[in-house]
Amino acid sequence: MTQLSPTLELAFDLISRPSVTPEDKGCQQLLADRLAPLGFKAEHLRFYDTDNLWLRRGDSGPLFTFAGHTDVVPSGPEEEWEFPPFEPTIHNGMLCGRGAADMKGSIASVVTAIERFIAKHPSHKGSIALLITSDEEGDATNGTVKVVETLETRNEKIDWCLVGEPSSTEKVGDVIKNGRRGSLGAKLTIKGIQGHVAYPHLAENPIHTCAPAIAELAVTEWDQGNEFFPPTSFQISNFNAGTSATNVIPGSVDIVCNFRFSTEQTDTGLRTRFEQLLDRHNLKYDLQWHLSGQPFLNAKGDLVDASVEAIRTVCGYETELSTAGGTSDGRFIAPTGAQVLELGPCNATIHKVNERITAEDLNTLSDIYEQIMVNLLVTD
Amino acid sequence: MTQLSPTLELAFDLISRPSVTPEDKGCQQLLADRLAPLGFKAEHLRFYDTDNLWLRRGDSGPLFTFAGHTDVVPSGPEEEWEFPPFEPTIHNGMLCGRGAADMKGSIASVVTAIERFIAKHPSHKGSIALLITSDEEGDATNGTVKVVETLETRNEKIDWCLVGEPSSTEKVGDVIKNGRRGSLGAKLTIKGIQGHVAYPHLAENPIHTCAPAIAELAVTEWDQGNEFFPPTSFQISNFNAGTSATNVIPGSVDIVCNFRFSTEQTDTGLRTRFEQLLDRHNLKYDLQWHLSGQPFLNAKGDLVDASVEAIRTVCGYETELSTAGGTSDGRFIAPTGAQVLELGPCNATIHKVNERITAEDLNTLSDIYEQIMVNLLVTD
Repeated sequence: MTQLSPTLELAFDLISRPSVTPEDKGCQQLLADRLAPLGFKAEHLRFYDTDNLWLRRGDSGPLFTFAGHTDVVPSGPEEEWEFPPFEPTIHNGMLCGRGAADMKGSIASVVTAIERFIAKHPSHKGSIALLITSDEEGDATNGTVKVVETLETRNEKIDWCLVGEPSSTEKVGDVIKNGRRGSLGAKLTIKGIQGHVAYPHLAENPIHTCAPAIAELAVTEWDQGNEFFPPTSFQISNFNAGTSATNVIPGSVDIVCNFRFSTEQTDTGLRTRFEQLLDRHNLKYDLQWHLSGQPFLNAKGDLVDASVEAIRTVCGYETELSTAGGTSDGRFIAPTGAQVLELGPCNATIHKVNERITAEDLNTLSDIYEQIMVNLLVTD
Repeated sequence: MTQLSPTLELAFDLISRPSVTPEDKGCQQLLADRLAPLGFKAEHLRFYDTDNLWLRRGDSGPLFTFAGHTDVVPSGPEEEWEFPPFEPTIHNGMLCGRGAADMKGSIASVVTAIERFIAKHPSHKGSIALLITSDEEGDATNGTVKVVETLETRNEKIDWCLVGEPSSTEKVGDVIKNGRRGSLGAKLTIKGIQGHVAYPHLAENPIHTCAPAIAELAVTEWDQGNEFFPPTSFQISNFNAGTSATNVIPGSVDIVCNFRFSTEQTDTGLRTRFEQLLDRHNLKYDLQWHLSGQPFLNAKGDLVDASVEAIRTVCGYETELSTAGGTSDGRFIAPTGAQVLELGPCNATIHKVNERITAEDLNTLSDIYEQIMVNLLVTD
């Protein structure tokens, strides 16, 4: 095997630690130790079962922050992996292992980028920070949310936040996520009256009574989206009714559903329209809402410009700004007023067996991260 | 405690045997032994786990048969019973115990009715038989179905079949079931394409696509019924979709549904209309049908006349002919061409905790059964 680059070497070190959510397995201490000589002050913020790390160099603004997570999703059956998930391997130019793409590779890339950047620009303007959690893949209740609360309490403001989530699709840097849809979930119970199939006049079948409302929900146009967001979408993920007996009309239907919504909507507006629709169908129901995240959009600004320009400089191609896809911890940072953007390696294999990325992409990603810092923190 | 009547004494003996489906616990042997001295020849027809008994007196026609079952449904939690379910008790004039109503009481009534009838009319015309199974409350695959097959094979024809199911509602004999709706079940799987809630354009949500069809099925008028049957009804008993994850669009929906249909329909006609409706909604699906029973109707004839007249003679009131309610083993006997009718005690507590009937009703029921035999088998 050829000599590993410093970025790949660090990625190997991180991937070999089986830090399945909410475990950190010493990854954060490794980062703190590595960046301490460069002037990064470490704050270990543990909340319940979750390790979090706030590393900051400098006291002045503006504050550039890299946000990421050291936890990974479970490997699934190890025998289905071509190489053991926690024994990082380079094979045919690919870095293989759990977390290679999501997102230990990004963390390794930013650490070496910072090292090179500070060596060249020891007197850069502003400050650099890392916000690292170990529960991004879990409930996300004791991670970034709580760290952001801590920062807000002492009025420590992030100006630019680069989240290292794997945003790329075919080659590194081809897509940047400059916003995310909101996510609003609901647990809905439609109530009927249980009874015997042979005596339907004594029962009220909630599957039957709710079907017209479900049909209407499925074809409702909530909005048409806008320049940055696709139309708001509604999906029922779970619909369960019945005692498993074939001759009993069930007394209730349990439904789990979700809105992914654009900045054309507010969560309260969606709630109202949803409830009005149910009421119009004369349904009896219980309803619990859960707002996972508000939509955010970073349509333009220094961070977008610096990132687009950095990709152009390093890779020679134009990047695409996108708000598609799932949520990330960016949703917790955007409400503080920070510009938030996601940029990381290709996401084709995340959360799957045989997670892998092109090894060379990490070196490129590290160059992009370095160039972003140059664009933002070095005065001409 | 006062002296028990012969009918109640036999009912006690049967109820004290915990013959939960498919167990018989010696009930059938008891009946065979008891009726042997009166000239009943016993045939024990065991199929797999199910005991069945064919008892017949006489070789000539017409053949009057009492059909019933010695098995009972489980008691459920015994501590919820006022009296132990398998320790028959008379309390405030009520016979309490599992099977009192469904249908050991009927069996005891018919046995004593036969004893009195033969004592008075030893040279009655035709023959008398009992068809007793021990799986009526279960799958009903190795019980009456198989006995009827055996009889058909040797061309032994039942002319009149009185099923001892608890048909009465407020007082014994107030309702006779002179027919039953058919029951046609289906297991339906609606197919979609699984995917992530955040990427609905890559998935096809089968809950959404089937909702308009479900809504239409729920309001379809299949027929208007007729003089003897209520309109055909359709009910979905089970509807399940979803992986329980809140962010996954399910790949399929599993539906269990059931038609209870009148003699205005055929099962093939219903199947065709159902499938045409699904096809019109462009659904992709798998479908398995299960015909539990064809509808049957015994609108008039010797057996109805003899029973109505017997109730008038014994009780002094008119009975109501009804086809409402669930299925019984009568559905297996009717297709042979027999006149089939259900007459038994009140059904308010069947399949429930604290099953019970008025004790005196069993003596009345025994008198009714005897009078029916007089009306059918004694030539003026």
